[in-house]
Amino acid sequence: MREPHYFEDFADGQVFRSGPYRMERDAIIAFAREFDPQPQHLGEEEAARSQFGQLVASGWHTAAVSMRLFIQDALPPIARGGQGLGLENLVWVRPVKPGDELHVEVEVLSMRPSRSRPDQGILKARIITKNQAEEVVQSTVTSALVPRRAAG
Amino acid sequence: MREPHYFEDFADGQVFRSGPYRMERDAIIAFAREFDPQPQHLGEEEAARSQFGQLVASGWHTAAVSMRLFIQDALPPIARGGQGLGLENLVWVRPVKPGDELHVEVEVLSMRPSRSRPDQGILKARIITKNQAEEVVQSTVTSALVPRRAAG
Repeated sequence: MREPHYFEDFADGQVFRSGPYRMERDAIIAFAREFDPQPQHLGEEEAARSQFGQLVASGWHTAAVSMRLFIQDALPPIARGGQGLGLENLVWVRPVKPGDELHVEVEVLSMRPSRSRPDQGILKARIITKNQAEEVVQSTVTSALVPRRAAG
Repeated sequence: MREPHYFEDFADGQVFRSGPYRMERDAIIAFAREFDPQPQHLGEEEAARSQFGQLVASGWHTAAVSMRLFIQDALPPIARGGQGLGLENLVWVRPVKPGDELHVEVEVLSMRPSRSRPDQGILKARIITKNQAEEVVQSTVTSALVPRRAAG
C-alpha cells in the first residue's frame, strides 16, 4: 500500500503506468445494458447488424475502466481523494473488443496552486489508454483538485 | 417505441429532454468500487474525511448516467447504433448526492456529412445534465457518427 500523496508529492513530467485490465464480454454487455444500450454493445447478434459488425465496448465503459486504472493502479492514492474537474478532450480512437487487455499511461502535464482554494492544487494529466498490441484506444486530458500538504 | 432515426432525421437546433433518473446511494457506492474507488464515493464514513465531507457520486458515474439518458430517453434510437467519437470538453460543475434526480437537456449543434465515411454523418450535440433543482451538474459537447438513410 503506497502512502497517500499530497499536491507537493507530484511533479510535472512524472509518468505512471498501470497494470492490465481485461475487458470481459459479460462485463461489456452488463455496462451497456445499464448505461449505453446500443446494438453494438448488447450482444453478438445485435452487434452483427450494427455499424461495427461485431461486439465492442461502450466508449463510456473504456472511460470508466481508464479511470479505475488511473486512480487505483497508476497514481499513488491521493490524500482525502482527488476531485475531478473535468476533461479538456476525450477521443475514442479504436474499438475495444471482448478479451482486450487495457492499460493506461499517465503523464503529469502541470501542477499549479488553486487560486480559489488555497488548500488545494490542480493536477493536469494526459491519460492514454492502450490495448495489448500497444495501440491507443482512448486519449484524454484531465484536471483534478489535490489537497496540499499544509492543509492536511 | 420510436422509429430508428438516421442522419437525415436530425437537424441543427433540435432540443431533446430526458425524464429523470434517481441517483441511489447503493448504486453510487457500487459504481465507485468498480471504477473510482476514492473515499468521497465509497461510503458515509470515508466520505466524511474526504475533500467533500459527504458521500458524492463519481463524476464518471454522472457521465455514464448522462449517456444512458442521452441515448435511451432523450434522443430517438439511432439506426444501427451511433458511434461516439469523443467529447470536446466535459466539466463537473456541482457534486451529485444520493437521492438527486438527474435529467439531460440535449441541443443539436451541427450536422455534417462525414468526409471519410460517405454512408455516415456527424452529429454534434451539447448535453447538459441538471439535478432536481435545475442546477447544472455536468456539461459536455459530444460528437457521434450516425448512419445516413441512403446507406440503411
